[in-house]
Parts: sequence; structure tokens; C-alpha cells
Amino acid sequence: MSMKKDKEAIARLVRPSSVAVIGASADPFKTAGRPVAYLRKHGFTGTIYPVNPRYDAIDGLTCYPDVGSLPAAPDVGIVLLGAERAHAAVRELADRGTRAAIVLASGYAETGEQGAARQAQLLAAAGSMRLLGPNTIGLVNLTDRITLSASGALETDSFRVGNIGVVSQSGGILGALLSRAAAGGIGLSKLVSTSNEADLDIADFMEFLVDDDATSVIALYVEAVRHPERFLEAALRAADTGKPVVAFKVGRSESGARSAVSHTGALAGSDRMYDALFRHAGVIRVGTFGDLLDVSNALSIGRRPEGNRVAILTSTGGAGTLVADSLGMTGFETPPPDEATATRLRALQTGDHAVLERNPIDVTLAGLQPDLLRGAIRALLDSPSYDAVAFIVGSSGLAMPDLMVGAIRDSLPGTRKPVVGYVSPHAPAIACLLNSQGIPAFTSPEAVTSALDAMLRYGRGMRRSDADAFEQAGIDVSEFPRGSLDEAQAKALFARFGVPSVNEVAVTSAAQAQEAAQAFGDKVVLKLLSNEITHKSDVGGVAIAVPIGAVGARLNRMRDDVETATGRPACAFLVQEMVSDGVELILGLHRDPLGTAVLLGMGGVTAELIRDTTMRLLDPRYGLSMSDATEMIRELKTFPLLDGYRGRPRTDIDALASAIVAFSRMAVQLGTELVEAEINPLFVLPQGRGVRAADGVAVIRRQA
Amino acid sequence: MSMKKDKEAIARLVRPSSVAVIGASADPFKTAGRPVAYLRKHGFTGTIYPVNPRYDAIDGLTCYPDVGSLPAAPDVGIVLLGAERAHAAVRELADRGTRAAIVLASGYAETGEQGAARQAQLLAAAGSMRLLGPNTIGLVNLTDRITLSASGALETDSFRVGNIGVVSQSGGILGALLSRAAAGGIGLSKLVSTSNEADLDIADFMEFLVDDDATSVIALYVEAVRHPERFLEAALRAADTGKPVVAFKVGRSESGARSAVSHTGALAGSDRMYDALFRHAGVIRVGTFGDLLDVSNALSIGRRPEGNRVAILTSTGGAGTLVADSLGMTGFETPPPDEATATRLRALQTGDHAVLERNPIDVTLAGLQPDLLRGAIRALLDSPSYDAVAFIVGSSGLAMPDLMVGAIRDSLPGTRKPVVGYVSPHAPAIACLLNSQGIPAFTSPEAVTSALDAMLRYGRGMRRSDADAFEQAGIDVSEFPRGSLDEAQAKALFARFGVPSVNEVAVTSAAQAQEAAQAFGDKVVLKLLSNEITHKSDVGGVAIAVPIGAVGARLNRMRDDVETATGRPACAFLVQEMVSDGVELILGLHRDPLGTAVLLGMGGVTAELIRDTTMRLLDPRYGLSMSDATEMIRELKTFPLLDGYRGRPRTDIDALASAIVAFSRMAVQLGTELVEAEINPLFVLPQGRGVRAADGVAVIRRQA
Repeated sequence: MSMKKDKEAIARLVRPSSVAVIGASADPFKTAGRPVAYLRKHGFTGTIYPVNPRYDAIDGLTCYPDVGSLPAAPDVGIVLLGAERAHAAVRELADRGTRAAIVLASGYAETGEQGAARQAQLLAAAGSMRLLGPNTIGLVNLTDRITLSASGALETDSFRVGNIGVVSQSGGILGALLSRAAAGGIGLSKLVSTSNEADLDIADFMEFLVDDDATSVIALYVEAVRHPERFLEAALRAADTGKPVVAFKVGRSESGARSAVSHTGALAGSDRMYDALFRHAGVIRVGTFGDLLDVSNALSIGRRPEGNRVAILTSTGGAGTLVADSLGMTGFETPPPDEATATRLRALQTGDHAVLERNPIDVTLAGLQPDLLRGAIRALLDSPSYDAVAFIVGSSGLAMPDLMVGAIRDSLPGTRKPVVGYVSPHAPAIACLLNSQGIPAFTSPEAVTSALDAMLRYGRGMRRSDADAFEQAGIDVSEFPRGSLDEAQAKALFARFGVPSVNEVAVTSAAQAQEAAQAFGDKVVLKLLSNEITHKSDVGGVAIAVPIGAVGARLNRMRDDVETATGRPACAFLVQEMVSDGVELILGLHRDPLGTAVLLGMGGVTAELIRDTTMRLLDPRYGLSMSDATEMIRELKTFPLLDGYRGRPRTDIDALASAIVAFSRMAVQLGTELVEAEINPLFVLPQGRGVRAADGVAVIRRQA
Repeated sequence: MSMKKDKEAIARLVRPSSVAVIGASADPFKTAGRPVAYLRKHGFTGTIYPVNPRYDAIDGLTCYPDVGSLPAAPDVGIVLLGAERAHAAVRELADRGTRAAIVLASGYAETGEQGAARQAQLLAAAGSMRLLGPNTIGLVNLTDRITLSASGALETDSFRVGNIGVVSQSGGILGALLSRAAAGGIGLSKLVSTSNEADLDIADFMEFLVDDDATSVIALYVEAVRHPERFLEAALRAADTGKPVVAFKVGRSESGARSAVSHTGALAGSDRMYDALFRHAGVIRVGTFGDLLDVSNALSIGRRPEGNRVAILTSTGGAGTLVADSLGMTGFETPPPDEATATRLRALQTGDHAVLERNPIDVTLAGLQPDLLRGAIRALLDSPSYDAVAFIVGSSGLAMPDLMVGAIRDSLPGTRKPVVGYVSPHAPAIACLLNSQGIPAFTSPEAVTSALDAMLRYGRGMRRSDADAFEQAGIDVSEFPRGSLDEAQAKALFARFGVPSVNEVAVTSAAQAQEAAQAFGDKVVLKLLSNEITHKSDVGGVAIAVPIGAVGARLNRMRDDVETATGRPACAFLVQEMVSDGVELILGLHRDPLGTAVLLGMGGVTAELIRDTTMRLLDPRYGLSMSDATEMIRELKTFPLLDGYRGRPRTDIDALASAIVAFSRMAVQLGTELVEAEINPLFVLPQGRGVRAADGVAVIRRQA
């Protein structure tokens, strides 16, 4: 499959000039009757070849008994046969030189081992022909009016053609998105259901949509990313071309993950790694299924707020409050109008009761009059106090939708500030009209918030790193042994890359320990030093706050304890300075099928309980940048502990960021040679005094 | 107003036999023309008196020049005049003996001080007549086809009459709920917009709906609860009669709270106190506006799951996964079918590809055939493995909606397990049909989850305490001084009610301190004792872990430090035992316009940062019960710290619960005499060893 990087074949699959439908039925009410009926209904202008030995013609089209009888090789074959016979049809299509086949049958990898074998057989039968599916509902190209699908959603007579391209790993969800978009007046360009992804996968169609001039936003329904590198590459290309990628992913809960597996036969990675992957790829992850369309729609108009201040214009107090409340919970601000704007608004009013010094801005009278509405929106868009305008459609707006929508549309030119609508009553016609005029409309206050939030985040640049690739393999690590390093070696490795450790001395006797301790103040830490025993404290191998006068005796006791617990001699120990004025963190490497990530977490038992951690995928060129690291630090819920909370000393956050970057570069340079790496605890000292690794684990791959 | 407890007047307001419409317009397209038009359109059978000196008749009805000319006193007067003239009409109505008036005008308390004065004038004009509004959109009684409203939502020709009663503090939201319910096939009984609540408020209509046979669920849109005691009383009566109360409240964010104020002129309490109030009242608080209708609708069918195991029946894999994922994130389980159920399901199938040993249960073929659908739902409802069934309506179900819905409806008798539907494509007709047949239907997976969660919680009993009222004023506190108590007195007060303190001795000299310390182990705590200085540590008045040999010297230094810092003599000190093996908490009293609450929080800086706290309102009869207290403790995010996390000793949770109950009873007995009370820290010792208050604040009201 890795050789099948055939962009031209995918383009032909999406825009074929001829389509064979294998197993077509003459009954348009049967699933097998739909593809031919839909192709014609929705205006396909190319050639359709129904193939079925039981008919001579279907709906006036010549029906062929088999693929071999076709007058020419079709660009695409839609295979409607069951799993028992689909592979034979696929082989015949491949033999005829068809560019791509779409296999709708289920009963493949999603059902278990036997199905997986069947799927392998199907893929083999395709040879060099590209394959969409199996278990797919197909592909819908609204831009070019080409429907290669059996989705019942295509019963709808017409769809709004727009610039949102959809890739779904579920066929049913493709249908749901198609029908919901049609009902909401949201325009789509292409929809593809990749489902089992025996060959073509989500990344292939992301690549296609990045190059597709008719698409400016890519919406994804994700169950599992099977090829993270290619996904990442496609997403980063989308970012480079300014096309937002919006994803909704299932498998967030244990039971959701289980059923995603049962549906696609794919192993779902852990959900937090998906967060890291999406963030790294600049993909906007939405939290509800409804947001997938709503947020994509908002982004598709291309407007971006510069900041988080929203004017809410309403003719119905309650709904304005709803939207303000939802926005406020996500950190948006809804300041009252500035003086000049209030004056402009007041000049528009005739009554005296509307209160224009507040936000939501209540234009109870003006809301009914298009001129006043136009003037009010214009005033708010002109105001330096606002980055976006949300207007509320109440019942009163329903009487003259065209005038109202026209007034809003007239206000748009001359500013890139977004204008979005919240439709308070049930009024689908208004929502449709607004969307079709490029004014994103929403029916839940939460969706308004999600949409503005996504616009703001995308506008600010999802993630463009400030780091350049660094010189790899620059640091000599040849003297480190392979396998599990002991604590001192692990910290020496980290220090080599720039993460400083606590001062320490390795000793083998009580006398040496006693002498070494003199350099470290009143109290020291004494530990067993071993590359075999990973949980030192479980065997009595850790002593904190040992008075320096007692170190020798303590070492002897530790030796006895450890030998009793392990049955093996304890030969080496570490005497360490004791850090008492730092904040404890954990810094570690996490390897996963989706990629390699660095995890930063707050230490201490309470933070551990609330899992106060954050993760970032490594960029293979440079690991993590300083801004990545700083962002991670600030994401910790208990970040204030590092930042001078309640009169505590502010800690050396810059040094912490540098340590994270250094750790990430180590991971990049050593690559898969570095099997495990963790610093726990990493102490962050008061500002200017840096960080200290106080314990560490590292495992280097043994040579084969 | 407190004297206006006139239930009969409210009943007459909701079901009048005659209605005067003051300021009625003959133009039904104007707001002032709507009430008469709507009354007639929706089938009001009583008498309508339009009042307007400019007309002789409106739509064939005699129009009267003023209230005085009416042939009889109307039951209700709808006042459509502006704020300048409304109070005069209200006075005339009151003078004629009208039972209640509805005032639609805005320009009252919601606009500021001048408006508040106008509102007071309006209320005075009403005299003993009840008043709905001002700034209301009115009242809609669907049960009896009586519309006393100008809401544009009444343009819709017909509404489904059902058993959900709605009280909204916003008129626009009333319209939105009315129109959304109509579109979704959700049946309502009555809708009231209380808005400014100059007289009648949310609690009055809750009371009415509790008594209303046509209503079985009460849905509230809340901006601010103005009379918490009456709200609580009404909500508890609803609970007693088995009528769920569902509330959506705005003002959760700062900006939302601000705009709620601007809208209703009411001061919003803090949002967490609303959580406590709703919990205490047994009110189900929903998190999104959409959930208000969806959850009310689900509860209105009266079915309740016994547990959290849901069978998901689907003919489209993706949507089943969506629902499973959402359910899983809220703690629902979706186990695979048990053996017997799987056998029954298999017997229904003809194909061999459907996988019936998993959940979501994918009946790709059966989904199209009503008999098989009926059999599958029946099998799942009969199964001991499931507490509820969620079925997915995919595109394939759209072809024969009646058969599909009929099959589901046929499966319902004989079980109280809920059956709910998720409609995956845009298919409003199916959702309507399902809802109208008593099968709650949802268009977002999150709504399915919210609905099942609310059904489960309500089914388990929202809050029925196990506590009886206790003998009040049983504990003699006469010897405690008034005003601010010092730390020793505060803790003595708490101990009197049953919260034990650390051992301590009050001293005045270094010598006394030195002697006292001998009883308390190696190290002690030394503190300034004062009822004037509340932040002892700020003035150098706290020393922790003082070696007993050094207590006298430390006291002398503390005296100097405090005297330097405060400029006043430091005369008294406390020598306390030092607790080192307990978990620190804070236990305090919080007074708020919504009620008096006990707050329990985890101590320590990290817990403080994440605000790991929980609150409960006090019941005036008994404070908090043991089960309230236990629930609070278990609600703390870091509860595992108390429960033996990672090998730590399990703490004395029972003693902590007892201390919370004791503290709450103190608050109940002392009532408003107790201005402030807080224990911080409260140490919870290992199991069997109880709790110890280590510091405390109490303020008792000074006599007037």
C-alpha cells in the first residue's frame, strides 16, 4: 500500500467520467438500486454502466452481465455485491484497468479475524487499483454533482454546494452530516466515508482536499488514525495552505473506544494522545458531534476575530443572556459599548427604554427595522471595543427574514470581524438563509461559543513553532551503557543534554558516605544505587533528610534492609544534597502508536490525584520549542504554584522550559534507541536558581 | 405581597373565563394586535374584551373605550400600554375587581433606578389584584387552549398538548421553548413568563403547577431566585408529589451574571450557591439550554432506569458509537448482551454478518424490518443485563416511520425501563412522531446521555434525607461572649456541639508555656491568643513545630514580634499539641441571600488552587444529615487522600461526617446569632482516632 501514492487515481475516483455499478438493482428502493438512481437524480453527466446479469437495462441504461462485457474500462467501479462475491468483482475491475473501486459490503475486518482475512483477500484482488472501503457508504462530490454512494441521505433533492470537505470513518455519520448540512443550509464540497480503510484512508482524502480548490475547510469524523505520520503530514499541509481542519473523535470513553473498535476493526490509541496529535497537527478538536458542522461552517467563511471581545445584539433579552453566559464560561468578554459606539447606537433609536450602555445590547425596537439593524451592526463592527458581533434572532425577526438577513449581509464588507447569529426560536428557514449568505447561524448558545472560540484559536495560529531544526547527533553519548541505566547514569545522561541534577556522590561504604555528606549542608538524601532495582523505596533503599552526622549508620542500616528485601548484595549508594525549597514536577517520555510525547506533570500526591499533567508530541526535527514548553508549563492547573502563588517565591520557569526543551532534544537525537526516560522528581527552584533532577530512569535499547 | 398568597387568583389567571385586552390594536401584525388574534386563533371559548378608545370593534368583537365601560369585571386584564400609561390601566382594572393583570411593557426595574420606581408605582396601583410582569410576554395555557400572550411563537397553528409546565424568567425564552417544543413534538401544559416578578414569581407558578393535574414535570428557566424559601418549599412539594423539577440557570459566568442583572433587575447569587439550592430542593439542574426541553421531555414519560447499563440498538454503526462514547463519558455502561439475550437476538437475524455479541448491537438488516425491530427491543428490555434501551434511527429508518415507531411503541408495555431514540440524520418528522408516542427522541448524543442521567438520578431519589429534626436550643452556650471569639473560645464553642479540638493550654508567660508544653510530645504549636487579630500569622503570631525546650524563648520572641507589628501588647498565647499524621480540611459556614450553607474543602495549597470544595444548604430542621455529610466528603476530588490512597492510612471518615453534622447543628441552633464560623484546619486523623479542630473563628452577633 505504501507504493500506492497515486494522487491522480484519487482525483479520478472523486471526479470520474465513467462509473460501473456492479450488482445494480432495477429497484430504486433497494440499497443496490440507489447508486444508479442517485447518480442520475443528482446530475452526473458521465457514463453509467449498470452491471447485473439479471437485467438488460436499468432505467433506460444498458445493463451489462459482467465487468468483462463493458464497452470500456470505467474510471470507478461501485461494488454492491456481498462480501462473498465482492473480491471477484474487484479483481475483474482491476483486470479491466479501472482506477478505483468502492466496496460497500460489510463483513470484513470490523467483524473479527475471519473478516480481516477476507479484507486482505479483497485488497490483494485490487492489485494496483485503489480501493475505497470496504464497509463504506461511498463518496459524494457535491461540487461536481457526482454521487458514488448508496446513502439514504441522497434521497434529498438538492444540497447546498459549499467549501467544507468531509472525511468520515463511518458511513452512517457521512449520511447524518450530509442530511444535517442540507437542512441547515450549510454548504459542503465533498464527502468521503473511508470506513475500514483497507487501502485509501483518511490521510489520502485530507491530501486530496488540501489540493481541492473547491474546499477551504476539512471536517473529520475520526474513530482511529491508522497512519499518524501521514495524517500529520496532511494536516500540516492543510495548515500551510490556510485550510482549517476540524475533527470530532469518538473513543473518548472506555465504552466508546470499545465500540469504535467493533466498528472499524482498528485499535484506538489513548484519547489524550489524540489530543496531543491534533494539537501538534494544528487540528481543531471539537467536543460535541454537533460542533463538527457548526464549527466547520463558522470557519468556512474565512473571518477571524482579533481578540475575545464580543458584542451581542439582541431584540430579546433572554437569548442574549444565554449567549453571554455561554461565552463568558469560555473566557470571552462582553464589555459594554464604548462612549462613541453608544452614541451611534442611541442615535439610531426612537424609543427611550432600550438600554444601550450594556452588553447584550438590547434593541427591542430596532430589531424589527432593517435600517436600524444595519446601522447597529455597522456601529458595533466599527467599534474598537469589539472583535466580533453575535446577533440574536428572536421571534420578531421571523416576520421579514429576507430584509433582516439582507441588512446583516450589507454590514459585512470592509471588516474581517466575524458576525454570527443565534436563532432563538425554532426557525430553520432563517438559519438556512443566514448560512447561505455566509453568516454562520447556530441554534444553541454553546455552538456560538465553540464557533467563536475555534475562529479565535485558528486566527491566532494553531501552532507554528518558533524552533528551527537543530543539529542532530551533536552530543556524544557513546560512553553510556545500554539497557537500564542506574539513577546516577540516567541523570548524567539528562545532564549531558542540559538538564542539571542535584549534587551527589556515589559511595560504597559508610565512611565514604559520611565524608561525602559534609559538602551538602545539615541533611542529605541517601539512596541505593542500582540499575536492577527500579522501585528503590519499596526495598528500603531511600532515606530522606538524614542528618549528616548519621549518614554512615543509616547507610549500614539501608544495606541490611535492602539485602534482606532483595536477597542480593547492596554495593553502591548515592549521597545527595537535599532540595527543600523547590516545586516538584515529573518530566517523562511517552511512546505510543500515535507518536512520541513528552509529559509534564505537577508532583505531589494531590496533583497526582487530579492528574495535573500535559503532553506534547515531539517534532522529529527539533523536539519541543521554548514556546511549546512554556505553554505546557502554563497549562498545568496548578501552574500558580510555580508562579509565586500566595507569596511563595516565583520559581525558575525559564529554566524549567529549557529543561523540557533539552529533554525533548535528547529524545529526538536518541530516537528509538531511548526506550524510556523519566525525571521524577524534577525540582524547580526559586527564580534564577534553575532546576534539578533529583531522580531519573533511562533505558537505552540493547544492541540486537 | 406576602399577604397575596391567593392561590385561587392564580388559578383564575391561568384559566380565566373573561379577558380584557387593554390597548389592543386592530392590526394583528402589530404586537398589540396579537393577544386578541391569538386568543381567537387558538380557541379561547370565554369572553374577550378589547379595550381601545380608537376602535369600535376589533375582528368583530366590541371594543370598549376604557376599563370603566366594560360590561363586567374581567378575570384577567392584559395591559399592552407603554410603561408611562400602564399603571393607570392597572389601577382601573383593580378598581373594577379584576383578579389579575398581565403587564407587557418594559422600562421598569430592568432599566435602572427610575424604572424600579415606576415598578413600585405599578405594584401599588395593583392593590390586592395579582400582577404578572411587568416586562413579561404573558402566559400560555395549552391544556385549556388559552393564550394570554403576545409571543410571536403563537403564530404557529397548533401545539402538542402535554404534561410539561414551563416557568421562565424571560419572555423571549418562553417563546423559544414554545416554538422548539412544537417543532420537536414535545407536549407542554402551561408556559408562564414571570420576568420582572413585581408580584407573582417563579415560586407562585411552581406551586400552581404542583397542583395542576395536567402537569407532571416542571421546567424552569432561571435568572435569579428572589425568594429562596418559597422556591424551596414549592420544589420540595413537587418532589413529594413525584413531579420532577428541571432547571436551566444563566449567570454562571461573570458576564452572564451581569447581563442577567440587566435583564431582570435582580441580583444573582453566586452560581455555586444555586447548585447547593437546587440540590437541596431536589431540582435537576441541566448544563445546556437544549437539555431543558430534552431532559424534561424524557422525565415526562415517567419511566426510570434502575441502573446505569444501556443497550444501544443500531442499524448504523457510527451513530451507535457516538451514543456509546457520550454515555461512557458520563459513567454509563454499555455491556455486551448476556448469553440468553444474544441467542434471542441471533434467532431474529437472517444474515450472518451482524455482530450481536457487542454493544452497540448492530442489526443492519433487522433495522429495516418492524417485526425484527420489535423482537430485538423486546429481547433487550427483557434482558437482566440492561436498565434502558437507546435505539438509533438511521437513514434506513426514514422510509417507513410509522411502522418503525409502531414497533417500538409495541415493545413498551410490561416494563418501566426507558426506551429512548437518537435520530442520526436530519429527520424532524421522525423525532416528532417518536415524542408524540411517548418515546423521547434526541438529535444529539449528548442529549441522550443527559436525559438518561436525569432519569437515573431522579429515579434514585434526588434527595430524601434520613435525618429527623433534632431538639433545638438544647445546648447551653450562655457563657460564651458576644462578638468575635478568640481562637480558644471558638474551638470551645465547636467542641460544645461535638467537634473536638487539639489539646491546648492558654498561657500568659514563657514559664507557663514551658510547663504546659511538657504534656504535648517533642514539638508543639505556639500561637498568639486574641479576639482582635484575625490573621495571626501576618503579625508573627504563629509558630509551628517548636521544640518543647524552646517554647519559653519562642514565646518571648513572638511577644516582641507581635507588639512591634501591631503596636499593642500581646498578653495571651496558646500552647497546642502538634498534629502531624492527619489530613487537613476546612469546614465553614457560608451565608448568602439564597440560604445558609456548610462548606467542606480539602486543605493544602494544591487543593486550594483547584478549589476542591463542596457545599450543602442547611435544612432549618436538622442542618445536615450523616448521609449529607458522607456524600460531601466523597464529593471532594481528592477524597482518596482520606481513604487510604497509595498505602496511606485510611482516615476517620465517620468522625469527620459526625463533625460536619455537629457543626451544622450548631449553625441551626444558633441561627442568625452565629454570624461567622470556620474551622481551618480541621485535621482528620487515622481511622478510630477522630478529628481535631486546630484553629477556628466564630463571631456571635452583638446584642442590639
